[in-house]
Amino acid sequence: MMKRIAMLGSTGSIGVNCLQVIQGYPERFKVMALSAGRNVNLLAEQVRMFKPEVVSVMDTDSETQLRQMLKGYSVEILSGEEGHVRIAVMKDVDLLVSAMVGVVGLAPTIAAIKCGKDIALANKETLVAAGSIMMDLAREHGVKILPIDSEHSAIFQCIHGRNSHEIQRIILTASGGPFCHRKDLESITPDDALQHPTWSMGAKITIDSATLMNKGLEVIEAHHLFGIPAENIQVIVHPQSIIHSMVELVDGGVIAQLSVPDMKSPIAYCLSYPERLDGVIERLDLASIGGLTFEEPDTERFPCLQLAYDAIKIGGTMPAVLNAANEIAVSRFLARQIGFMDIPRIIKQVMDSHKVVLNPSLDDIFSATEWGKEMAKEL
Amino acid sequence: MMKRIAMLGSTGSIGVNCLQVIQGYPERFKVMALSAGRNVNLLAEQVRMFKPEVVSVMDTDSETQLRQMLKGYSVEILSGEEGHVRIAVMKDVDLLVSAMVGVVGLAPTIAAIKCGKDIALANKETLVAAGSIMMDLAREHGVKILPIDSEHSAIFQCIHGRNSHEIQRIILTASGGPFCHRKDLESITPDDALQHPTWSMGAKITIDSATLMNKGLEVIEAHHLFGIPAENIQVIVHPQSIIHSMVELVDGGVIAQLSVPDMKSPIAYCLSYPERLDGVIERLDLASIGGLTFEEPDTERFPCLQLAYDAIKIGGTMPAVLNAANEIAVSRFLARQIGFMDIPRIIKQVMDSHKVVLNPSLDDIFSATEWGKEMAKEL
Repeated sequence: MMKRIAMLGSTGSIGVNCLQVIQGYPERFKVMALSAGRNVNLLAEQVRMFKPEVVSVMDTDSETQLRQMLKGYSVEILSGEEGHVRIAVMKDVDLLVSAMVGVVGLAPTIAAIKCGKDIALANKETLVAAGSIMMDLAREHGVKILPIDSEHSAIFQCIHGRNSHEIQRIILTASGGPFCHRKDLESITPDDALQHPTWSMGAKITIDSATLMNKGLEVIEAHHLFGIPAENIQVIVHPQSIIHSMVELVDGGVIAQLSVPDMKSPIAYCLSYPERLDGVIERLDLASIGGLTFEEPDTERFPCLQLAYDAIKIGGTMPAVLNAANEIAVSRFLARQIGFMDIPRIIKQVMDSHKVVLNPSLDDIFSATEWGKEMAKEL
Repeated sequence: MMKRIAMLGSTGSIGVNCLQVIQGYPERFKVMALSAGRNVNLLAEQVRMFKPEVVSVMDTDSETQLRQMLKGYSVEILSGEEGHVRIAVMKDVDLLVSAMVGVVGLAPTIAAIKCGKDIALANKETLVAAGSIMMDLAREHGVKILPIDSEHSAIFQCIHGRNSHEIQRIILTASGGPFCHRKDLESITPDDALQHPTWSMGAKITIDSATLMNKGLEVIEAHHLFGIPAENIQVIVHPQSIIHSMVELVDGGVIAQLSVPDMKSPIAYCLSYPERLDGVIERLDLASIGGLTFEEPDTERFPCLQLAYDAIKIGGTMPAVLNAANEIAVSRFLARQIGFMDIPRIIKQVMDSHKVVLNPSLDDIFSATEWGKEMAKEL
């Protein structure tokens, strides 16, 4: 049966890879709708290729541009949050790929859940900031949240078919980032940081990977996705990025998911779930890789990871504030306004002065996010 | 609910470990019957500890000895194949642990399957020699065959809950044995061989591990247990024995099962399946292990592995003959009658002169086994 897909964030790296997978299996998928930010050139190309019924862009300027480019094409063009939400709740869609970056993805994703649509989730903010609300809604509406992140997809695949009381612990693997063994962290520049060894990613996630905040956010996401307390989620550094994560079972055994590092693997599994597509990625040849190594992460030298554990332990609006403060701190680092080790310092200061709202509403989360961003700009 | 267990081979290393697991969870298991060979001292101890209703030994001499030792005990004492079969088909038993060594385990295991009892299988010969017959019978009688071997248990756990058409390949891990990188294999003595690095095992299986025949037999077992053609079962050398085996899925992803090397892990899972017992083995600490390595097996230097692939490809009675010839060749090597590299030479000669019976009956398999043994004694 043809699966009908709508996608938020089709011009980002997840969106582009997602469409590449879809292109390889034309008998399996139909693209119903695409939404993007301001990259109208790429979006227009995607429209010509995948022929969705509806598209949406960030603002009316982009909308006007896109209309120009797609003159004569039979496609409905929308813009703004209203446009994204329209796409998210579109009928005849089986799966929404939620791959926008930032809090902007939250409202349309929640709208889709309320319409009972399964979600392939790459938008970190929805789970980090509003994980409890999201997961409660998903349960209420019988919706599956399928993780696109390679680590969470690995955990999802390791748990597959097992009872929740068989699960003892989640072991999230981390590449360790480029500075895993560097002595002097204070002097790191954006140029040093923007060369990640294994995956090719955007600037924000590259810095998050270098500070280990990326892994901290993934701990929070895993906590919500799999209902495991944060103290039972362990991070282990595994520089080869072959084991994408592991699940320890109550008897002491461990199930791991491995593959060559290629984001098409988790993307394809989300798209085809519960089935599995043939030949998505290159086969893993462990003999030619030779060795896999592991070490403990150094939370003293990389305090961001510990800050994420602290945030989830405090709960309420604190993870949203952690995420907001991190977003600003990273952009200030990239703009050369602050040093590398100022990132965790600023986040900690913002967290320390936040008045937590427990059991927050979505509005509380949006307010806390705004507050956290403003605060982080001033420090 | 209390699971009621009967056990063939209670005084061997699998049997002893099995009873140790059972002892740790007295509220979960009841030992109904035990059978052993001639180690009446240990069997008597086990009877006093686990209070089975019936026991059985190899012959009437051992039976007489055991009666002496257990005077005044309320336990029925049997002997010989008849005794083993009685235990295998005993009513009120939920699971038969089949852990005898050699072809002697075949008849009682098949009798138990015909009675609809689930089997925890450690007896290699049943699957290697009579895999097709066994698996057909198990399907016919709705019986689960649960593998006790760590490799097959790993595969079983990796496949768990997945559809057979999701499975592309099985990757069996092998420690590589003590001579993995030794130049001169001809000069290996039994004393050299009887020091296996990771597991502590009997002499026969230690030599099988050194020749890689152990892995060859496991390929044949995996073929029958999981219905995967031998060409899709790959062996990879992994000296640390932490990853117990892997399953490659059709999309290119791989699921692996890991743990500290401890045979209690697969044993406990067989006993408690489909549930999982708490805290069976030590937790795996990959950071302190540091690294896992992998290499291709050298089938030219270790021809036994290739002989096993050849045997399963030919099929019929050939795997039984391979197994029989290997049994004799190993015992002749241990008795210092032949050299280490004569083991594969003898097996190959026996295989070359065997007239294969395709679709064999159990009697054909027994005859081929006897023929293979006689032949291997004379070369």
